[in-house]
Amino acid sequence: MKKKLVFSVLGKFLILESVLLFLPALCSLIYKEYNNVISFLITASISSAIGSILCIKAPKNSELYAKEGLVIIGLVWLSWSLIGALPFYLSGEIPSYIDCIFETVSGFTTTGATILTNIEKMSKGMLFWRSFTHWIGGMGVLVFAMAIIPLSDKNAIHLMRAEVPGPVVSKLVPRGTHNAKILYGIYIGLCIVEFIFLKLGGMPIYDSIIHTFSTAGTGGFSCKNASIAAYNSAYIEWVIIIFMFLFSLNFNLYYFIIIKRFAAIKKNSEWKLFAGIVCISSFLIAVSLRQYYQNIGDLIRTSVFQVVSVMSTTGFCTADFNLWNGFSKTILLLLMFVGACAGSTGGGFKIIRIIILSKITSKTIYKLISPKSVNNVKVDGNPLDDETVKSVTGYLIVYVMILFASIFLISTNNLNIEETISSVATCFNNVGPGLGMIGPVGNFHSLSVLSKIVLSLDMLLGRLEIFPILLILIPIIWKKKFI
Amino acid sequence: MKKKLVFSVLGKFLILESVLLFLPALCSLIYKEYNNVISFLITASISSAIGSILCIKAPKNSELYAKEGLVIIGLVWLSWSLIGALPFYLSGEIPSYIDCIFETVSGFTTTGATILTNIEKMSKGMLFWRSFTHWIGGMGVLVFAMAIIPLSDKNAIHLMRAEVPGPVVSKLVPRGTHNAKILYGIYIGLCIVEFIFLKLGGMPIYDSIIHTFSTAGTGGFSCKNASIAAYNSAYIEWVIIIFMFLFSLNFNLYYFIIIKRFAAIKKNSEWKLFAGIVCISSFLIAVSLRQYYQNIGDLIRTSVFQVVSVMSTTGFCTADFNLWNGFSKTILLLLMFVGACAGSTGGGFKIIRIIILSKITSKTIYKLISPKSVNNVKVDGNPLDDETVKSVTGYLIVYVMILFASIFLISTNNLNIEETISSVATCFNNVGPGLGMIGPVGNFHSLSVLSKIVLSLDMLLGRLEIFPILLILIPIIWKKKFI
Repeated sequence: MKKKLVFSVLGKFLILESVLLFLPALCSLIYKEYNNVISFLITASISSAIGSILCIKAPKNSELYAKEGLVIIGLVWLSWSLIGALPFYLSGEIPSYIDCIFETVSGFTTTGATILTNIEKMSKGMLFWRSFTHWIGGMGVLVFAMAIIPLSDKNAIHLMRAEVPGPVVSKLVPRGTHNAKILYGIYIGLCIVEFIFLKLGGMPIYDSIIHTFSTAGTGGFSCKNASIAAYNSAYIEWVIIIFMFLFSLNFNLYYFIIIKRFAAIKKNSEWKLFAGIVCISSFLIAVSLRQYYQNIGDLIRTSVFQVVSVMSTTGFCTADFNLWNGFSKTILLLLMFVGACAGSTGGGFKIIRIIILSKITSKTIYKLISPKSVNNVKVDGNPLDDETVKSVTGYLIVYVMILFASIFLISTNNLNIEETISSVATCFNNVGPGLGMIGPVGNFHSLSVLSKIVLSLDMLLGRLEIFPILLILIPIIWKKKFI
Repeated sequence: MKKKLVFSVLGKFLILESVLLFLPALCSLIYKEYNNVISFLITASISSAIGSILCIKAPKNSELYAKEGLVIIGLVWLSWSLIGALPFYLSGEIPSYIDCIFETVSGFTTTGATILTNIEKMSKGMLFWRSFTHWIGGMGVLVFAMAIIPLSDKNAIHLMRAEVPGPVVSKLVPRGTHNAKILYGIYIGLCIVEFIFLKLGGMPIYDSIIHTFSTAGTGGFSCKNASIAAYNSAYIEWVIIIFMFLFSLNFNLYYFIIIKRFAAIKKNSEWKLFAGIVCISSFLIAVSLRQYYQNIGDLIRTSVFQVVSVMSTTGFCTADFNLWNGFSKTILLLLMFVGACAGSTGGGFKIIRIIILSKITSKTIYKLISPKSVNNVKVDGNPLDDETVKSVTGYLIVYVMILFASIFLISTNNLNIEETISSVATCFNNVGPGLGMIGPVGNFHSLSVLSKIVLSLDMLLGRLEIFPILLILIPIIWKKKFI
């Protein structure tokens, strides 16, 4: 592995993080939280100092391969989290550094799981930074970098593959600065529209910004203890539902709208299945909860909200679904694994992978019946190449293994089974709240340090689709032979 | 598909079942339960009548292909269960026919999940039949048939592949009558030794037979409400532990002992990993339960018993592990999925598949690091062919899909998440007891009819490793084109 090159690119990213830290510093300045301003500026200095040192030895041969791309992305996310946790620690608002890391990882990975026991006690600047990490992490650190740092197209594709969710790097996925700008244009455009709608519903400007950040990244951090329920407004809830839904669709679809290729949207099966699962699950949960809510409007809105919130892997709440019946809770747990569409800001296993696996299954069965049949798996009419099929099945294998290993490690906390499984499910799939004591009204504060480390790694593994983080954890990659 | 041939072979198997029914009839006669004798004889007549009708039209061309092999095995297990349920129903001892089916499927598939609320109220003859189904199902309906019905080797291999657990049809797995006899010899030999040891421990003859049947098939049906705990004997518990362990090893190992190929045993990694997981899990559970048991002997024995019982997918109990801490319960739930060795009478995902999947994972990661490396997966020093690798990954995909679909269907029962997940885990992996109301002191009686059907199918899918049952459920296989 080209160690020098890897670290010089990492250095550039650290300098970028120091620039981003000026925004929460500005927010703190506006709210006259001078202690926070200092915390953010110290962190920015540390980040740019380390970044500059790493950049000094930039090698001449700067061509990246797939392996380096994965390792860089893994290292960037890890170091951004470790440094991004510093403001919480330096300001003293979160006393334990491991908690700071958990909260920051949860932010960047757009999970939204929190260790805070009282969110409203936090300062405005810190809450801004917390939700801003959602916004950055949602679209991806790299896409952001590409929109501003020039990178050769050849290098970009290797970094891209490592960060963009989903098994297929499809057409729009930025092959260069130009596409990254289109992607960010769509992202910012949707955010502005959401912000306006929230503001129109009477939400304060600060709160609207926070919730726009958190919806856009399908993260779920709120500035209220009661999450969206705090506003007690059907209008605001519907606005959030719609935007959680929009941000969990493949961004290619918006690009197709811009260039007026409506046929491509019609042909795409992923968003249809996603919408279908949302409708059916909401309907089933609403029917099963009909005795819990007197008003039919409340019943439907609350059911749809929670289904979209969990499937988009946002994790906002308007109800304590912990108090719901076993059926609803089981459905929500299953939806955590399903997740959103590829190429969106959402997490989970991703709809497209489920489509591909279903097709592989039916092909396998068909092959048993007619052994001589041709074995092409087609999605939306296009045959999938062998590499994609292999990568999806490989992903399932590693996904299941990590899931079981994590459940085993978390079980040492002696939580009940519902809590053990849902804590892993919610972190690994980047959702946010789980069930039981880590449910909508609970938090991850009382877990052991080991559990917080395991769940932080799960969040990173989930967001980066496993391999970038797995690679940097393997000692062999750092040995001479591979350097 | 050769429909005529399939049904004529099925007919032979039904006649075989009618012969087997004479054994419980004899047992009932000994205990003077004349009502039961009549129930068994009526069932035997029905079975042989249907069998004879199906046999009449035996076609001349009697060569089987893989597809027919799978369909025959699927149909045999389904029809044996439906007919085997009749004695319970005719005698009136289990009033609901769906409950009778659940109990019989649970017997043949060696699951051991029960709908009985009071086992000791049942007659001796019926409890004998119940445990005898474990003994038959443990080694497999087909192996049994092959030991007595002559089948051409070519046809045998296709039936074999459909019934023997595990991804690789290995050397000993009977390719003909001769090998089937060796296999049954080992099976019966182990049973006789266990029976003698149980008898020496003071267990009554009838009880010893029942528990030998249930251990041999790694089933778990007992004739006592309190299962093995009823005997309150450390000696008996250790005997059962050892035999549960022995019956969940690959029977090839015993064959190797007989032909003195000890090198082959030394090279085999599956039993070592199985034994390793048993030791580590027992140790961890014992440590976590040290406050529950005063006596260290009780602590160790109870921990080891429950770990071996669950991993071998037997399901006997000496403690209500429902009352244990979250850690122990989570470990037991995870072990349900792991299961026993391939080529044993145990169920679950099977150790060898986990070994193969781990190797595929490390190869996948290694391939990321060195893209040009050769991609051979080796087990015990032998490279696996592409077909086996594909079949193991394909199995995982279908396994996960059925697991999720079943959890979804069972969630309609409105049980809590622990109960919902563990009911599917315990049935699909052929273990027996779950957690909560379906735990060691509970039963499946109060579940809905839909749930009982789903779980019965899960038991069959688990025992036959999915495809034989999946195939007969697909309408397309019965269409003209494929007949």
